[in-house]
Amino acid sequence: MSDRARWNRYRSELCEVPSLGLSVDPSCMGHPPDLLEKMGPELEKAFAAMEALEKGAIANPDEQRMVGHYWLRDPSRAPNSELRGAIEDTLAAIEAFAADVHEGRKVNPEGARFTDVLVVGIGGSALGPELVARALGSTRDRLAVSFFDNTDPDGFDLVVDRLGARLATTLVVVISKSGGTKETRNGMLEAKWALERKGLSFGPRAVAVTGEGSALDVFAKKEGFLARFPMWDWVGGRTSELSAVGLLPAALQGLDVRGMLEGARLCDEATRGREARNNPAAILAAMWHFAGGGRGQKDMVVLPYKDRIELLSRYLQQLVMESLGKEKDLAGNVVHQGIAVYGNKGSTDQHAYVQQLRDGVPNFFATFIEVLRDRAGTDAEVEPGVTSGDYLLGFFLGTRRALAENGRPSLTITVPDVSPRSLGALIALFERAVGFYATLVGINAYHQPGVEAGKKAAAEVLALQAKIVAALDATPRDVEAIGSAIGSEDLETVHKICVHLAANGRLRREGDRFARG
Amino acid sequence: MSDRARWNRYRSELCEVPSLGLSVDPSCMGHPPDLLEKMGPELEKAFAAMEALEKGAIANPDEQRMVGHYWLRDPSRAPNSELRGAIEDTLAAIEAFAADVHEGRKVNPEGARFTDVLVVGIGGSALGPELVARALGSTRDRLAVSFFDNTDPDGFDLVVDRLGARLATTLVVVISKSGGTKETRNGMLEAKWALERKGLSFGPRAVAVTGEGSALDVFAKKEGFLARFPMWDWVGGRTSELSAVGLLPAALQGLDVRGMLEGARLCDEATRGREARNNPAAILAAMWHFAGGGRGQKDMVVLPYKDRIELLSRYLQQLVMESLGKEKDLAGNVVHQGIAVYGNKGSTDQHAYVQQLRDGVPNFFATFIEVLRDRAGTDAEVEPGVTSGDYLLGFFLGTRRALAENGRPSLTITVPDVSPRSLGALIALFERAVGFYATLVGINAYHQPGVEAGKKAAAEVLALQAKIVAALDATPRDVEAIGSAIGSEDLETVHKICVHLAANGRLRREGDRFARG
Repeated sequence: MSDRARWNRYRSELCEVPSLGLSVDPSCMGHPPDLLEKMGPELEKAFAAMEALEKGAIANPDEQRMVGHYWLRDPSRAPNSELRGAIEDTLAAIEAFAADVHEGRKVNPEGARFTDVLVVGIGGSALGPELVARALGSTRDRLAVSFFDNTDPDGFDLVVDRLGARLATTLVVVISKSGGTKETRNGMLEAKWALERKGLSFGPRAVAVTGEGSALDVFAKKEGFLARFPMWDWVGGRTSELSAVGLLPAALQGLDVRGMLEGARLCDEATRGREARNNPAAILAAMWHFAGGGRGQKDMVVLPYKDRIELLSRYLQQLVMESLGKEKDLAGNVVHQGIAVYGNKGSTDQHAYVQQLRDGVPNFFATFIEVLRDRAGTDAEVEPGVTSGDYLLGFFLGTRRALAENGRPSLTITVPDVSPRSLGALIALFERAVGFYATLVGINAYHQPGVEAGKKAAAEVLALQAKIVAALDATPRDVEAIGSAIGSEDLETVHKICVHLAANGRLRREGDRFARG
Repeated sequence: MSDRARWNRYRSELCEVPSLGLSVDPSCMGHPPDLLEKMGPELEKAFAAMEALEKGAIANPDEQRMVGHYWLRDPSRAPNSELRGAIEDTLAAIEAFAADVHEGRKVNPEGARFTDVLVVGIGGSALGPELVARALGSTRDRLAVSFFDNTDPDGFDLVVDRLGARLATTLVVVISKSGGTKETRNGMLEAKWALERKGLSFGPRAVAVTGEGSALDVFAKKEGFLARFPMWDWVGGRTSELSAVGLLPAALQGLDVRGMLEGARLCDEATRGREARNNPAAILAAMWHFAGGGRGQKDMVVLPYKDRIELLSRYLQQLVMESLGKEKDLAGNVVHQGIAVYGNKGSTDQHAYVQQLRDGVPNFFATFIEVLRDRAGTDAEVEPGVTSGDYLLGFFLGTRRALAENGRPSLTITVPDVSPRSLGALIALFERAVGFYATLVGINAYHQPGVEAGKKAAAEVLALQAKIVAALDATPRDVEAIGSAIGSEDLETVHKICVHLAANGRLRREGDRFARG
C-alpha cells in the first residue's frame, strides 16, 4: 500500500471520541473496507443485546443475573431506584471513609494514622486495583498500596517483610464477592497472624468489600472490622473495578475516583451509538472477529507504550479470556471459544519477542496503546531536537510499520495521557467490546463455569492430604502402602502430597517412603 | 485414564535430576508412549549439534559466531584458554568489585556507601537481572535494585522519584552489548541528568557492561566510569544472564552468584546425556514439538506456582520467542516458526484465564512450575492440618487435573526451592531445550534478523520529525501542507508526529493544523 493510500485509509477509518481525546485506529488490520457494513446485522444484534443488558435484562442467563457494571458510572441508568441508591450511597461512603482515614479521624487501634493499604484479593478483586495503583500511583499517594494476591506463603512473607514496621499502620482491605475464595481467606488469615505476631489486633484495622451476608461479611462483623462495603451479584469480578472493589483502594490511595467514573461514563456514551464506524467498541469487536475468524484463531498481543500501564495487558487478559473463553454457546453447542491475550509493554517487548511477531508464526494481531503525553516534569533532549519520548513514539510507529510490511495486523488505541479519566475510559472501552464480541459469537460473557472444576479437584487434593496424614505413623511406608491404607488409587497425587509435606518438614522421607515425625 | 494408569505413566515418564532435586513430568501431554523413541534420529541430530556448539562450532551461521553461554558456568569447556581466562577473570573481577562496594572500599564521589543499584538495560540486558532480583531478593539485600528498561520519560521519572534522596548513593549499571541500543543510551542520559539536576556527577558512580570498544565502552572511559565489564560476541543477549550482564547486578545485590552458576552447570551436565528419557531438556523440546506439530500451533502457557518467579514466564517469553520465532529455516525455506509464550503465576492466573484454558479455544499447552519449599519462616494452619502452601499445591494439582480432563496438555517442572542453584538450573534447562528444539525444526536459534526492520522504521520516524520541525514556522499548516514542504507522502506518520509534539507543548495545534511556538 502506498503512503498516500495508507493515509487515506487511516483518515477514513480512524474513530475518535472528542470528549476523551481517545481514538481507535483499525487501518492496519488488513480487513476489507466494507467489513463493518457487512457485519451490520450482527452488530445490530450486539447493540440490541447491550441495550437490553443496560436496561436490566437477565444478561447472564446461567446465573439468572442482571449485568450492571455500566450503571456504576451512570447510576441514573440503573433499572430501579433501589439499585441507583445503592450505587450512590456506596460511592459516598467510600469517599467519606477515605477522607476519615486521610484526615486522621479513622486511625489504627493505637491511635496512629494509617500509612499503607494492604489489599487482599485475587483475580477480579486484585487485577483492577493493581492496574490502577501502578497506573496512577506515585510517592505522593495518601497511602501506599501493597497486595496479597495469591496463596503463596513465601509471597505473603515478602510483602509483610517489605512493610516492616509500617505493618502497624497498615489498613487491610479484604475483597471477596462470595467471601468464599480460599486464596483470599488464606491471605486474610496470614495478615491477621502477621499483625498478631507483633501483638497487634486485626479487626480494628481491617475493612471488607463483600456480598451482604457472605462468610467474609459475617467474619467482619464478628471481628469488629472498621468498615464493610457491598459487592452486588449484578457486578462480575472482572468488571468490578468501578465498584467498591476498585474505588475503595483508589480512594484510599488518594486518587480521583470521580475522574475514573467520568472517563468510563463518557466512553460508555460514545460506545452506545449504533453507527459502527463511530463506535470504537464496536470497531474493536468487529476487528477481533475478523482477525480470528470468530473462532479466536489469533492471539491478541497488547502492547501499551507506557510503563505505567504495563499491567493493562494482564487486566485485559482476565477481562477478555474469562469472558470469552467458553465451551458452549448460548444455544448449548460446543464451540470452544476465546481469544488468548498476552503482552507487557513497548518498547521493552520489542526486545523480547517482536522477532517472532514480525518473522515467526503469524498467529496474532497486535493492539498498540499509544499515550500522547510524555511526562509531567521538564524534558530534555537525548539528541538535538529529540527526546526519550520521541524515541518511544518512533519505536511504536516503527514496529507497527514493520509488522504491517509482513502482513501482521494491528489495532492502535490512542489516549491523551494516563489519567483517571483515560484509564476509566480504557476499562469501559474493553468492557463493551467484550460484550459486543460475545454477542457476535453467541456466548454468555458473564459466567465462568470452567473454574469450578479446578477448585473441586483442589478440594479433593486437600481431602486426600488429610487422609494421608491421618493414616501415617512412625513407620515409613511407600506410596502403594499409603494408597492401600486410605483406599485411594490416585497414587500420583498421594506421591506429590507426600513429597510436598516432606519438603516442608511435615513428614519424614526415607527414599521413596514417608512417615510421621 | 484410570488413577492407576496415570500413576504408572507418571512413574515411567518422570525424569529426575538428583543433583538438583529437579524433575520434568511430561505424563499429562497426551503423547504416544513411544514418542521419544520415534523422535530418536531427530533428537540424535539435536544432541550432535549441541555437542558441536559446546565445542566452539559456528552455531550462529548468519553472524558467523560461536555460541558460548554454556562455557560461562563451566569455563573448562571453553574452546581455548583465552576464552576460559576471560570468563574466569570476569567472574573474579565482578566478585572483587561487589566486595569493594559492599565493604565501602568503592564509594560514591561524596564518600558515602552505595545503597542502591540502578540497572539500565532492555531485553536481554534487563529481563535476566529483573527475574533474579525478584526471585532471590529481599529487604536484606546488600544493595536494592531498580531498573530503567524502556525509553518512557514518565517511567524514568517514576523510578527516580522512588529512589528519592537515595539517588545520591545509587550505583548506575549500564548494560548494552553493542553499546548502540537507543533505549539504554536514553536511560543512561536520563540517569545522568537526574543526578546532575541534584548537582551530582555521573561517571564516578557508573559502571558499564558492554563489548570492548563499543560506543558505550568509549563513553565510559571518557566519563571516568568506576568500572567496565566485558560482553562477548559469543554470548547472545537472551542467554546472557550468567555473564556479567546478570552476575554483576546479582553480586551487587549480595546474591550467591556461584550458586547460580553451579545450578546451571549441574543442569547442563544432566542435559548433555544422549538418552532422551533421562534428559529433561530433550523431553521438553520433544514435547513442544509434539504439542505444536513442530509448527508452533500451540502457545506455551507458563504458570509458576510461586510469587518470586512470576517473571520467569516473561524471561522465557524472550528466550523462546526471540530464539524460535524465525521466518526461514537454515536451508533458507520460509517456515514462519516460533512458539508464543505467556503466563504470570499460579494460583493467581487461575482467577484470570483458566476459564478459557479449560473450556475455551484449545490452542495451548501449559507448563507448570512447582516449588516444593513453601516458606523460610514459621508456618501456620488456615484450617486444621492445612497451610496456605497446601492450598497452593492443591490449586496447582487441581488445575492440572481439570485441564487434563478436558484434553488440555501440560508439562510439570518441579524444583525444591527458589534458590540461586534452582534458578540457575531452570535457566539452563530452558536454554538447552530451546537449542534442541531449534535443531528439531531446523532453524538458527541465535540470531534475530527481524528486529532490525522496526529499528530502521523508527529511525525514519525520527528523521521525519526533524524535517517537520525544521519546515514549520509560526503559520499553522495542515498535514498535507507539511508533507509537501518536506517532500513526504507518509502523511499518517507526519500526522502522528505532529499530534505527539503538540500534546507535549512542542508544537502549537489549531484543529488539524500545526505551527511552531
